[in-house]
Amino acid sequence: MNLNRNQIADLPKTKKIHLINAITGFKPVNLIATRNTNGMENVAVFSSVVHLGSNPGLVGFVLRPTTAQRDTYENILNATYYTINHVHEGIIEQAHQTSASYPKDVSEFGKTGLTPEYIDGFQAPFVQESRVRMGLRVQKVIDIELNGTKFVIGQIEQISIPDTTLVHEHGYLNLEKAESMALVGLDGYHKASLVARKSYATVDQPTRTIKLEDNGK
Amino acid sequence: MNLNRNQIADLPKTKKIHLINAITGFKPVNLIATRNTNGMENVAVFSSVVHLGSNPGLVGFVLRPTTAQRDTYENILNATYYTINHVHEGIIEQAHQTSASYPKDVSEFGKTGLTPEYIDGFQAPFVQESRVRMGLRVQKVIDIELNGTKFVIGQIEQISIPDTTLVHEHGYLNLEKAESMALVGLDGYHKASLVARKSYATVDQPTRTIKLEDNGK
Repeated sequence: MNLNRNQIADLPKTKKIHLINAITGFKPVNLIATRNTNGMENVAVFSSVVHLGSNPGLVGFVLRPTTAQRDTYENILNATYYTINHVHEGIIEQAHQTSASYPKDVSEFGKTGLTPEYIDGFQAPFVQESRVRMGLRVQKVIDIELNGTKFVIGQIEQISIPDTTLVHEHGYLNLEKAESMALVGLDGYHKASLVARKSYATVDQPTRTIKLEDNGK
Repeated sequence: MNLNRNQIADLPKTKKIHLINAITGFKPVNLIATRNTNGMENVAVFSSVVHLGSNPGLVGFVLRPTTAQRDTYENILNATYYTINHVHEGIIEQAHQTSASYPKDVSEFGKTGLTPEYIDGFQAPFVQESRVRMGLRVQKVIDIELNGTKFVIGQIEQISIPDTTLVHEHGYLNLEKAESMALVGLDGYHKASLVARKSYATVDQPTRTIKLEDNGK
């Protein structure tokens, strides 16, 4: 299949949405949870979380101007804290259901069967069922005028990974064992298995395959 | 494992880099290819490509201030066109090797054994070995002053998926069949397999599981 600019523009609407949402490759599947200043909790699924830097730990995500995502945005603006929680195979149903357009005064936690959990005094709720979780404070919101989306950047201020065997000695995170999901397009939930870890690439030498450390298996 | 802000800051450097790079979840693995106005070609691997919108098709990625990525940036600024190409299991070695710091006057295509391919008059090279490919024109570069990275946004102007069975009737893209890779952290290449497609979520009904269309299997 080979499409130029005009042929892409002429794709049927549904086909275009599915294809363009999938064409960037596998996406992470995360629940972003917030609490507004009145104590109202919110949780919604996002597939646009992206690593921006390690020191400090900065993470971005894309907000679309939709109902489900607008509550998340308003809560982050008001309360400044939020959490990002991996979705694993056991909570696909609940996570996907958070994308429905619930009214503003309804918590998706109650409606979907996910459980808010407060850890270590962090001000936003974590998702108790999630196995890899981080707490963030918003640093910057960038308006992307090209299509009316917003790019929200936060700094990681809390990390919660209850199963310590997921974190290997030198920091490798075993997301296969965590059963974290990878998404295709809008709705294709995949599990992933390790093919190989590759050593740091240099000009003069071919890369080696790294063995997974025993403490993490 | 439970770390607060100070404990995160105090992590050993290598452990912090691996952990923070992995904590956002699975990442897409893409080769970004460019050609500068002198005809010099460049290709480098990126795991930060993110979907921004479908109509028009807008895609972002994060550029770090490193040698391997700076050539890509300068070429995009000068030539405006670039391509994003999925990495599959058969080209992990070549893709990972593009992250080595080759000199400016050396093409990573020649050094890594990847092949540039020009399609349909599009001005940037595609990676011939890749199975899911798109051509873009840069729309905007956003400086992220928090850590000196840049967020590059382009519009999709060309799509090339040689194996038509990868694209299902309504646009679902079979990335399991394409063997597209999902990355953990800096170096953990994973293959993915479909668990379930879930129907559009609504407030009143539980989501259904969608069957993959037969034409794509």
